[in-house]
Amino acid sequence: MIKEAIAEIKTLDKGMFEKAQARLDILTKPQGSLGRLEEFAAQIVAITGNTMPEIARKVIFTFAGDHGVTKAGVSAYPSEVTPQMVLNFLAGGAGINVLARHAGADVAVVDIGVNYDFNEAEGLIHKKVVSGTANMLEGPAMTKQEAERCIEVGIELVREYKKKGYDLIGTGDMGIGNTTPSSAIAAVITGESVARVTGYGTGITDEALKNKVSVIEQSIKKNSPDASDGLDVLAKVGGAEIGGIAGVCIGAAIERVPVVVDGLISTAGALIAYTMEPKCAEYMISAHKSVEVGQTAMLDKMGLRPIVDLEMRLGEGTGAALGMMFVEAGLKIYREMATFESAGVTGDKV
Amino acid sequence: MIKEAIAEIKTLDKGMFEKAQARLDILTKPQGSLGRLEEFAAQIVAITGNTMPEIARKVIFTFAGDHGVTKAGVSAYPSEVTPQMVLNFLAGGAGINVLARHAGADVAVVDIGVNYDFNEAEGLIHKKVVSGTANMLEGPAMTKQEAERCIEVGIELVREYKKKGYDLIGTGDMGIGNTTPSSAIAAVITGESVARVTGYGTGITDEALKNKVSVIEQSIKKNSPDASDGLDVLAKVGGAEIGGIAGVCIGAAIERVPVVVDGLISTAGALIAYTMEPKCAEYMISAHKSVEVGQTAMLDKMGLRPIVDLEMRLGEGTGAALGMMFVEAGLKIYREMATFESAGVTGDKV
Repeated sequence: MIKEAIAEIKTLDKGMFEKAQARLDILTKPQGSLGRLEEFAAQIVAITGNTMPEIARKVIFTFAGDHGVTKAGVSAYPSEVTPQMVLNFLAGGAGINVLARHAGADVAVVDIGVNYDFNEAEGLIHKKVVSGTANMLEGPAMTKQEAERCIEVGIELVREYKKKGYDLIGTGDMGIGNTTPSSAIAAVITGESVARVTGYGTGITDEALKNKVSVIEQSIKKNSPDASDGLDVLAKVGGAEIGGIAGVCIGAAIERVPVVVDGLISTAGALIAYTMEPKCAEYMISAHKSVEVGQTAMLDKMGLRPIVDLEMRLGEGTGAALGMMFVEAGLKIYREMATFESAGVTGDKV
Repeated sequence: MIKEAIAEIKTLDKGMFEKAQARLDILTKPQGSLGRLEEFAAQIVAITGNTMPEIARKVIFTFAGDHGVTKAGVSAYPSEVTPQMVLNFLAGGAGINVLARHAGADVAVVDIGVNYDFNEAEGLIHKKVVSGTANMLEGPAMTKQEAERCIEVGIELVREYKKKGYDLIGTGDMGIGNTTPSSAIAAVITGESVARVTGYGTGITDEALKNKVSVIEQSIKKNSPDASDGLDVLAKVGGAEIGGIAGVCIGAAIERVPVVVDGLISTAGALIAYTMEPKCAEYMISAHKSVEVGQTAMLDKMGLRPIVDLEMRLGEGTGAALGMMFVEAGLKIYREMATFESAGVTGDKV
């Protein structure tokens, strides 16, 4: 299914960027003076293939999963925090809830790999593929089939939400321990050393950081993931929520919906998608520069530039929520500003 | 009046920052993980002196004025564009209208110095102090009394809008030619060379930039403004809208309302306020890094760090509108997020 889906992805039409810029250039402002806001508008025009696109509904997919590798002491918090935070999301009390409300976006909370039985928890999207990954120090985090299923879940969700009228998508994550697989993915695919792409996560000590680097190095050695095969990397040193995010990035490219990518973990998911099909990056907007050092090498690999740097490192999709506000600002400029002609403003230079 | 008003300005209470941080640290996120959003929340707590402040109404003051120095060929556009754009603001078609609507802020358009008779134009705040400044190449742009009056207008507007229930203020400007006085102010007060703080404005050629630098250098030489006297600098090489913005920054500090400062021109106004009373800077938040090179030296002088860099250079308050969305995001985090205790989330590290 994934292979066929990916085959549908098309590169963006340069002519649409030019059409968008032609409109931006007759609006009542010096040409180019709204900088990156103009860039976002043009990208949405090209992605949607519509010269007057609209953003009616926005959703952030926050995928939750647990990680067997937490047994190796890579995180500052215990795994029990993953389901606790999922319940906090459902109750509306987490950072992502606050910022998504602020941005006018819905939050779709997806259990794709939490090691906890949520029963029929209301508001949760039940798509559990694994009950936590296996410890990648000892073998692959997931089987190839499980990794594929995670990606399919992401693709299916985009299809479903697009049908419901959502036209701007964001990515987010929750999973104690998940900066570890994210840094592993960064190291394998970008070729950077593990030490250069591994950070403090939720706030470990310098001592624990050394251990984390060593755990990642050993896990990569143990599993020998193939850097050119995104699915192989995801299965061996990834995680379920990272797979879901990769699926959303692929689904966004298939369905031609712009996707705003959050920080380290989401960027790792985006990089898996990019490795499977580089054209996926054309549909992505990187929301923010994370404090987590591993993100930069991945963004560079994909040619993406984050919108803001607010020194954030929370994940959940919090950066994506903020990023969406800018993307929408750019589109509103494009749609709503008066032209020199309509406003009777002199557009010619002296 | 101004001297007495400034005497009321108080330095912020460090204890209030600590109280705010204590609350931020029990919310369901790793401590400090929301970076600058947390900083904005703490600053608003300290400014308002309220441990649970609210933002109910937001306004951006967009001051418009003309500049005699445009005769010297410093701008890419003719002066007639100033009143045309004011009318565009009133009709809701300009960049500031779109972005203020997006941020949920009102725009208060103030004629403080436009060389045009708006008659009774509806929706315009009529506070004309001058009909364009005099050409600073030949003498002071304004008299000291006019400069004072501009500042008073800004202070009075903040008082009036605070009474109406506005609790977050932004600054903006419109005035063909106004990057020239702004760069002049930057050079005089920061001590940087004119060439280092002068940019392309709305988009002049390299040749015209050389002329602009020379015009600013000659104007400073002609008028010998006293760098330690903000009012003197404003009168001699400033502009009416810059004075209005300076007044808003002073008024915000008096009335204890946070003020989000836009790009180059607004930062020049903020620097005038800072020169008159350095404590004003404690009430400011710099919205964005402008493309205009002169802004950085002024921000450094005041110890301010812009929130975003979107390569914008439009003015009007467009950056302030975006900045407000972040400030509000920070405050919502502070007000709305669940605590570890209330959400039943384990807050202790392993």
